[in-house]
Amino acid sequence: MSEQYSHLIDLNDYPVEWWDKVINLGAQICAHPQRYVQACAGKIMATLFYEPSTRTQMSFQSAMIRLGGSIIGFDNPMSSSVSKGENLKDTTKVVSSYSDILIIRHPMAGTAKAAAMTAECPVVNAGDGGHLHPTQTLTDLLTLKMEKGRLDHMTVGLCGDLLYGRTVHSLCKALACYPENRFVLISTPELRVPEYITKLLREAGCEYREETSLDAAISELDVLYMTRIQRERFQSEADYLAQKDVYRLTPEKMRKAKPDLAVLHPLPRVDEIEIAVDDDERALYFKQAKYGMYVRMALILKLLESTNPQPLLHGELHPELRCVNPKCVRAQEHYLPPLFTQIGTRTVCEYCEERALPVE
Amino acid sequence: MSEQYSHLIDLNDYPVEWWDKVINLGAQICAHPQRYVQACAGKIMATLFYEPSTRTQMSFQSAMIRLGGSIIGFDNPMSSSVSKGENLKDTTKVVSSYSDILIIRHPMAGTAKAAAMTAECPVVNAGDGGHLHPTQTLTDLLTLKMEKGRLDHMTVGLCGDLLYGRTVHSLCKALACYPENRFVLISTPELRVPEYITKLLREAGCEYREETSLDAAISELDVLYMTRIQRERFQSEADYLAQKDVYRLTPEKMRKAKPDLAVLHPLPRVDEIEIAVDDDERALYFKQAKYGMYVRMALILKLLESTNPQPLLHGELHPELRCVNPKCVRAQEHYLPPLFTQIGTRTVCEYCEERALPVE
Amino acid sequence: MSEQYSHLIDLNDYPVEWWDKVINLGAQICAHPQRYVQACAGKIMATLFYEPSTRTQMSFQSAMIRLGGSIIGFDNPMSSSVSKGENLKDTTKVVSSYSDILIIRHPMAGTAKAAAMTAECPVVNAGDGGHLHPTQTLTDLLTLKMEKGRLDHMTVGLCGDLLYGRTVHSLCKALACYPENRFVLISTPELRVPEYITKLLREAGCEYREETSLDAAISELDVLYMTRIQRERFQSEADYLAQKDVYRLTPEKMRKAKPDLAVLHPLPRVDEIEIAVDDDERALYFKQAKYGMYVRMALILKLLESTNPQPLLHGELHPELRCVNPKCVRAQEHYLPPLFTQIGTRTVCEYCEERALPVE
Repeated sequence: MSEQYSHLIDLNDYPVEWWDKVINLGAQICAHPQRYVQACAGKIMATLFYEPSTRTQMSFQSAMIRLGGSIIGFDNPMSSSVSKGENLKDTTKVVSSYSDILIIRHPMAGTAKAAAMTAECPVVNAGDGGHLHPTQTLTDLLTLKMEKGRLDHMTVGLCGDLLYGRTVHSLCKALACYPENRFVLISTPELRVPEYITKLLREAGCEYREETSLDAAISELDVLYMTRIQRERFQSEADYLAQKDVYRLTPEKMRKAKPDLAVLHPLPRVDEIEIAVDDDERALYFKQAKYGMYVRMALILKLLESTNPQPLLHGELHPELRCVNPKCVRAQEHYLPPLFTQIGTRTVCEYCEERALPVE
Repeated sequence: MSEQYSHLIDLNDYPVEWWDKVINLGAQICAHPQRYVQACAGKIMATLFYEPSTRTQMSFQSAMIRLGGSIIGFDNPMSSSVSKGENLKDTTKVVSSYSDILIIRHPMAGTAKAAAMTAECPVVNAGDGGHLHPTQTLTDLLTLKMEKGRLDHMTVGLCGDLLYGRTVHSLCKALACYPENRFVLISTPELRVPEYITKLLREAGCEYREETSLDAAISELDVLYMTRIQRERFQSEADYLAQKDVYRLTPEKMRKAKPDLAVLHPLPRVDEIEIAVDDDERALYFKQAKYGMYVRMALILKLLESTNPQPLLHGELHPELRCVNPKCVRAQEHYLPPLFTQIGTRTVCEYCEERALPVE
Repeated sequence: MSEQYSHLIDLNDYPVEWWDKVINLGAQICAHPQRYVQACAGKIMATLFYEPSTRTQMSFQSAMIRLGGSIIGFDNPMSSSVSKGENLKDTTKVVSSYSDILIIRHPMAGTAKAAAMTAECPVVNAGDGGHLHPTQTLTDLLTLKMEKGRLDHMTVGLCGDLLYGRTVHSLCKALACYPENRFVLISTPELRVPEYITKLLREAGCEYREETSLDAAISELDVLYMTRIQRERFQSEADYLAQKDVYRLTPEKMRKAKPDLAVLHPLPRVDEIEIAVDDDERALYFKQAKYGMYVRMALILKLLESTNPQPLLHGELHPELRCVNPKCVRAQEHYLPPLFTQIGTRTVCEYCEERALPVE
């Protein structure tokens, strides 16, 4: 298994110091983009998007181009050899041999890690289903660093779908690593953050509160992180109609907020932020998208320069165990070794971090 | 509303002197392409094609590359965030923050203008439904300039679908601005040019004649601009079969034409020009496509260099009016302000230029 | 008909000396890639993929980028003017006028040749249906040259679908041109190589043997070229299940092979090579894919530098003949002249090399 490259699969594979280096480099690039226009001259980035995401793909592409590099790739799996039944390993092997860095997005959890196991170059996880999306979290951190001047001592509201929203979970985990952050978790009772997140916050010694009204919480916040709530996530259409306005950001609610509130959103939004809010200078979600390009420039540089790769795999072979997740990459790529890791008292799949059970 | 950039939404937003500058720069680039190979080094062009158009997209892409710039973009809205219900404003905001110039094509009239209202860089209209396609008109003008040596004192035949063909309308409007052009409008009675075009020609003092036979008109022409007639545009299949040959250019008809006739076609053609005509040196439609690349190079340079943007919006807010056009961008993008303009005695929608009625 | 450019439509249009030059240049580029990073600076390659093939397209794209050139193109015919009914000639004419070299892949035999007839730049055949795929053969030859050190005096096993596999036929024809190669043709009786290949081997004075068991043949081989057998190619599902393991390469079979066997595969594979074989250092198919990039770099350079084009057309006009192949480009592009060539006693279509019959 090739562990000779530096990959970014999961932010938690790296210490907070590493994140700070990437974010600080991102801030440098923001300030002096001209210094980096030849930094990746002659390098090729391949973007393998097995699932469409224009924004993320264009963000990576413009990042590489602004470093002087070039891009190849696809955004349409039906135009690819995938439609001839090729496995992930073979596609990764070949495409990584053409390129210097590989960006992969896939609907199955663990795909980026599986790709990294055989790639001939560094691999970046640009989203593996509902599992991880580390460059979104780096984007959020660079935005806060640039706009608030710090990553600590903040009261951070997170609003919307806190149960399924992976960007929310990642941001909580990340900000819990910096001192004195306080969290206000704003959602319907059905869409509360999962227990493992509140446990993590408690263990990190972070103060937090759960809240069902954005209006009630907004005045105390330094940061408000908004996310989409999908209509289907409500119990009924009646519930949706009754509650959607409670979690919708409007100019009225903004009037109660601090003058230096930072409103973030991973985008795309649907209607959880009223368009009239865009003109408020505290609305930072479009700036945030641009910081996403800068932080990806920093990340690409960092991974291409690294001569001291982090270990990719932490688990052990357990042929007697199976992963229960039908959306795990191993459900499709059967040649992958059955690797499992111990997290506290739980044994989880190395690829998707879901629970392991004995083979039947 | 951001009006700090120079956009090209509608040729008529600029005076004829500006067109001449772009065309003359295009002619310079044709003559000395090597001088421009680094003119846009480090710049990024984003092409947002919400509707497929290989030719136009590749023309823009090769133009940017021949200026030393790079490209990002999509040609497949289903691979984009659009499929997650994102509005035009958000897509434009984000993509324009990654790039230096944005090229947009969309099936709804007024989309390029709406995009320009919030973009963080210059926007070029690469076709907004049946409404405008200004770079095609610039292409036609550069072709005539290069091949006829002038844009005035010509007898110009326009043949085919003169009712719906937007390139025909734009070319008429453009050539009417140069002295002593004469027009022969060749079509079935059902597909005659709209009244507003003949009115415009009369007001500009241009001589024109309507004609139902290409064969009868061809000998007097300096320029013949051919367009496709869609089968569905005829009253019946019988009508189509009876009339299609009347509007089809053949080697026989070419025999009656002047030795220096210039035959143009915006392409793609179907069968309105017989393939045997291609070998005639008066057939300039393939050369015209190449001039399209050169004029787009000139346009990109012009917009990126401009420090004196034209005002984008001319209308006034009229919440009491509505646009009657179901294919207007406002039918879809509800946040757009209800702007309307006075043209003579008519009040029209700022975005699509269709008629306004009172809100019901 | 434009024959002023050097095209690569069919390897057999060139003498073996030319192949050797391309392969030797490919070897040079492998050894010193840094020397070529500006070799095509300012040049544009257009990739027209009317049929998806990620691997081939990315290989060409990364080749051009590693030479300092740029790329435009499509991989999705439905996003193209093709969907508006444009013929191949017009698309080729226009796109080749934007670019310096055109790479075309199409499901109909003879399409690349037809495109070359009117293109304004060199054309490379990247696969025309089941007909030809010359850059795959160049890839195979460079791989053997680099890994075996020679292209002669080898015992070459070809295994799998030898009836329909065009890469197998091309490789046989190519290796038959070098001295003292011996062939072992391993397949089911239903999927034997066509008669014209064995005839060609006999005429070239090559020793060959047909074999139905990979296990029986593997120990004598210097090279093993594996190919996919499509399930549908077997007489019945029962036949498939009974026979598939006979043609499947496994670690067990590898144990009987020479220590310097070279295992090649054009990829994508399905399950004709067990994944456990990948770790064997004699498994060269991923390296082969990388050599494909290098040989395409060599080819692009060669065609762009050529000032002495080979004649493109060898046939004569025969309006009284018709091609019997429903997948011939002339079945769709009716304007193409009815050209036919004499091969021995047979008259074949110039485009697809299938048999000609009198017009009914």
